[in-house]
Amino acid sequence: MSLLETITAPADLRALPVERMPELAEEIRSFLVSEVSKTGGHLGPNLGVVELTIALHRVFDSPRDTIVFDTGHQSYVHKLLTGRHDFSKLKKQGGLSGYPNRAESEHDVVENSHASTALSWADGIAKGRRLRGQGQRHTVAVIGDGALTGGMAWEAINNIAVDKTLPLVIVVNDNERSYAPTIGGLAEHLATLRTTRGYERFLAWGKRSLARTPFVGGPVFETLHGVKKGLKDIVAPQGMFEDLGLKYYGPVDGHDEQAVERALRQARDFGGPVIVHVITQKGRGYQPALDDVADHMHGIGKINPETGLPFEVAGRIWTDEFNDEMVRLGAERDDLVALTAAMLIPVGLDGFAAAYPERVFDVGIAEQHAVTMASGLAYAGLHPVVALYATFLNRAFDQMLMDCALHKAGVTFVLDRAGITGSDGASHNGMWDMALMSIVPGLRLAAPRDGDQVRRQLREAVDVTDGPTVIRFPKGDVAEPLEAVRQQGDVDVLFETGSGDVDLLVLGVGAFAGLAVDVGAKVAALGHTVRVVDPRWVLPVSGTVLDLAAQAGAVAVIEDNLVTGGVGAAVTVALREAGQQAPVHLHGIPKRFLHHASRGQLLEELGLTAESIVADLQTRLS
Amino acid sequence: MSLLETITAPADLRALPVERMPELAEEIRSFLVSEVSKTGGHLGPNLGVVELTIALHRVFDSPRDTIVFDTGHQSYVHKLLTGRHDFSKLKKQGGLSGYPNRAESEHDVVENSHASTALSWADGIAKGRRLRGQGQRHTVAVIGDGALTGGMAWEAINNIAVDKTLPLVIVVNDNERSYAPTIGGLAEHLATLRTTRGYERFLAWGKRSLARTPFVGGPVFETLHGVKKGLKDIVAPQGMFEDLGLKYYGPVDGHDEQAVERALRQARDFGGPVIVHVITQKGRGYQPALDDVADHMHGIGKINPETGLPFEVAGRIWTDEFNDEMVRLGAERDDLVALTAAMLIPVGLDGFAAAYPERVFDVGIAEQHAVTMASGLAYAGLHPVVALYATFLNRAFDQMLMDCALHKAGVTFVLDRAGITGSDGASHNGMWDMALMSIVPGLRLAAPRDGDQVRRQLREAVDVTDGPTVIRFPKGDVAEPLEAVRQQGDVDVLFETGSGDVDLLVLGVGAFAGLAVDVGAKVAALGHTVRVVDPRWVLPVSGTVLDLAAQAGAVAVIEDNLVTGGVGAAVTVALREAGQQAPVHLHGIPKRFLHHASRGQLLEELGLTAESIVADLQTRLS
Repeated sequence: MSLLETITAPADLRALPVERMPELAEEIRSFLVSEVSKTGGHLGPNLGVVELTIALHRVFDSPRDTIVFDTGHQSYVHKLLTGRHDFSKLKKQGGLSGYPNRAESEHDVVENSHASTALSWADGIAKGRRLRGQGQRHTVAVIGDGALTGGMAWEAINNIAVDKTLPLVIVVNDNERSYAPTIGGLAEHLATLRTTRGYERFLAWGKRSLARTPFVGGPVFETLHGVKKGLKDIVAPQGMFEDLGLKYYGPVDGHDEQAVERALRQARDFGGPVIVHVITQKGRGYQPALDDVADHMHGIGKINPETGLPFEVAGRIWTDEFNDEMVRLGAERDDLVALTAAMLIPVGLDGFAAAYPERVFDVGIAEQHAVTMASGLAYAGLHPVVALYATFLNRAFDQMLMDCALHKAGVTFVLDRAGITGSDGASHNGMWDMALMSIVPGLRLAAPRDGDQVRRQLREAVDVTDGPTVIRFPKGDVAEPLEAVRQQGDVDVLFETGSGDVDLLVLGVGAFAGLAVDVGAKVAALGHTVRVVDPRWVLPVSGTVLDLAAQAGAVAVIEDNLVTGGVGAAVTVALREAGQQAPVHLHGIPKRFLHHASRGQLLEELGLTAESIVADLQTRLS
Repeated sequence: MSLLETITAPADLRALPVERMPELAEEIRSFLVSEVSKTGGHLGPNLGVVELTIALHRVFDSPRDTIVFDTGHQSYVHKLLTGRHDFSKLKKQGGLSGYPNRAESEHDVVENSHASTALSWADGIAKGRRLRGQGQRHTVAVIGDGALTGGMAWEAINNIAVDKTLPLVIVVNDNERSYAPTIGGLAEHLATLRTTRGYERFLAWGKRSLARTPFVGGPVFETLHGVKKGLKDIVAPQGMFEDLGLKYYGPVDGHDEQAVERALRQARDFGGPVIVHVITQKGRGYQPALDDVADHMHGIGKINPETGLPFEVAGRIWTDEFNDEMVRLGAERDDLVALTAAMLIPVGLDGFAAAYPERVFDVGIAEQHAVTMASGLAYAGLHPVVALYATFLNRAFDQMLMDCALHKAGVTFVLDRAGITGSDGASHNGMWDMALMSIVPGLRLAAPRDGDQVRRQLREAVDVTDGPTVIRFPKGDVAEPLEAVRQQGDVDVLFETGSGDVDLLVLGVGAFAGLAVDVGAKVAALGHTVRVVDPRWVLPVSGTVLDLAAQAGAVAVIEDNLVTGGVGAAVTVALREAGQQAPVHLHGIPKRFLHHASRGQLLEELGLTAESIVADLQTRLS
């Protein structure tokens, strides 16, 4: 029986002698490589936190003490040490979530995978415990150096630092990167801190020398003695965290389990808020991950564990279409600039960045800043393209509204991973963006149906100078090209049974255009007259859509977005305001959080298949 | 002719000898006190930045150089120095905006009054200018110490600090407060910096002493010489800003105009990003403002300029109802805690804070942190009440969705200043909250119609343990009490012409309940049967509302919120999904940004009066 197999709860871990920890770490790494290579998942981040997580569960007493993981994708080791050993269906329906999940374990607290939230959670939990007379229970937040670039983390530190008796430990898991290398002034400051120990040794020599001088008691000593803080800064330049009032321990070698334990025990017993700065290596112990310079196998699909190479050869994805067209546009227009938030490669800005490095800004995990900075760039005469995952635009709604739209800034937003993404769970689905964007004055939103449309609509978007535009498309393989049978205004008609009035008008939004054509064909086969269109620019609802609806007995809208407040709702309200009476049937995602499963499974479950939609429409079409 | 009257543009200001600036400052202060006391406005903040703004316009060449004001309410002096001298209709329809406004002047850039955005704007503008070959044009951001507590400011600093040649000057206007005294680790750090000069004098003595020691060249000198950064920290502990890589100048006496000019010139000519730390006094030079310890006359109504006392005795406002009930609830429930974001008094938490100081958290201008911290407090077993202005909840949409709602945290949000606020312009109106909240799963939203309902619905809200609740009410005097004629389910029927089916069902949302009753009575007078109800809990749409709609030929929804995605839209979609055919007529705020004017003027303009609504309904009811 392996050591790992003996651990069903943290108490089992604590019962083991500390000398066995390297062996356990080795077992965990082997387990992660062999298991995650079968399912896909966040391999690199978890390989980096093996010793750290062991130390956390040896020093703290979860769930009595609370351990909060920021972004949560680095919680696999935590899952193992809290008794969850079946990784065979990781991130799959019915299997373990790829993130902490309260339904899975009492040791899991925060399920949200959006970065930079853990310190705020921890602040609330620690202060809440104290108010409930449970101040002896410790709260620990584990946050990456990348996530510290997010403004929320700053807001939290600013609050935590002043509460001198709060039993809260912040573990900064510093691997010098988020998805990509961490940027900014903070990253440079962390680099300074990382080199402290050598510096300390040098200074220790200086201090000894100073002590030996015959003038102790004279002006030199007085000067230094009177300036305690300055002296401390010489001996250990803890830097900005201590400037803000936070006790700082570190840096600690995150792969020396005993050293991490020691630091965490000190922090736990300090009696106030503490930062423990732990240096780790993403992909630690697995050569293919270390060799992957782009992201150290941050998130992978199924791979061959020996070579680290993917089993499936990926086809062309939506992102590729955007990536290539941006390179072409960049050559044509020197006023085009691009921004992203620590996601340069995943959002497909690597081509543009390679070709025009001076015109790309990766701002760190800082969507708010990205959107407002883009508004500033537009003011200075440029056309910014802000590329984000759809779910992360939620972070910058206020900036979109008040900085970008209010100032009529010509900024194009490109939202990748829009709609149901599935296996990453509730907080990664890009199912809110169209509802959010539908309430922004002057904003135009396009949902391209295929690669050709991605390119065309991106070109249309960057020509808009008087307000924000949004292009949104899903994760994964780009949809098959779909030719229009004719155009009406800006709308592409994809299928129709005749040229006049029809029983049903189907609006297929974006990647659901193909599904809409399937639905249209099946409804036609049932004897109804049908017209299926891709509205292309779906928000605001166009006059052409109203014209088309006027020719229809009923309208169906199929969208990969929340049905509440989505395109269908906008069409419903627009028709009602125009005095049109055609009923609108909405097919989209219901207003609830989705469990993790494949995109296909979720679409099936939600009735977003041709069969389900046709069955529903059949009951509605008399 | 006064000096001020001779200034029609910044060039006139620059042409004056620097010796005359104190005289000019005096004139400006007199002008501000006499003019703003007639109209109301942000008196205290503007009195604090007189010399600073003079110095800015003498050192920088606006609009060639760009000056961005954070939050913008401290731009009155800027308006004066850029030729806008008619303050007689300040914040009134047709008069000067209370914030920068691009339509008013080429010297105005950012109109958004939400805090902490200026550094991101400046980063974009400065980098944009450089890309356009205009790198010699300077960009200046003026930001308060309070606004630095907002996460966006941190995100921006992190980006600005690494760009060593960016011609960007950040002026920190440090008056130790935002609306209220600034909180947090940063505030403590700024306090340290503020005391630097005395410290420096002490250290200068130490340095001189050190230079006199015979051991220069020996180990002492070596130690200090080898540790440049440490030595610099002793001589001038610039602290965290320099840790992050930003050049720091300061602190500067913000009321010594020549000193501010000198610092700004140094900063302008530095050749890279610089922070200039200016110490100012809110309300400077006006004794009644200085005597007002609560907020130094941050924003005032009309006052007697001699005494600083308000002319109008304020009646009871919506906020008072919440304030009083929170005190009562706090006595009954020791698990109730309250949070706000630098707005303790304006949102009416001062009563609770006085009674239960350990149970209130003012987190600074940090709405994101407030919402997630509240989720953490709920996890620890408390019931948090987060009180904000409605418009500022926009900042924390992602946290509401992914931290609060996803985790089913029992948190109550109380949104003050919901709906049209008017005179503060586009970004202060609370017209988005219901649309935003309508897409959050599991969230329940109440719009109380009067003071009694504020108290009752607050009590209902804090009893909810399985998800977020929102209570929203407008600015100003609380509505007259409105008795229900009967109740159906949770819905209050306020007026009806009979007990059976009616031609029209009117839903009056929150403070518009009275307006809805007026509309109902007028429609009844036209010969239609009518029922007017207050749905009380307006989101999600209740079964009772659907039942009531089933008894109506048509439905009208009257709401003080964006019509797109608002309650009316939710009712429209709910009816459609339930297969009900009654048309829904929406009366709310159209999807556009509103200019500044009084609430009454805007309601009139938007057709949100009984006359306009009835006229519209008349054309729709056949």
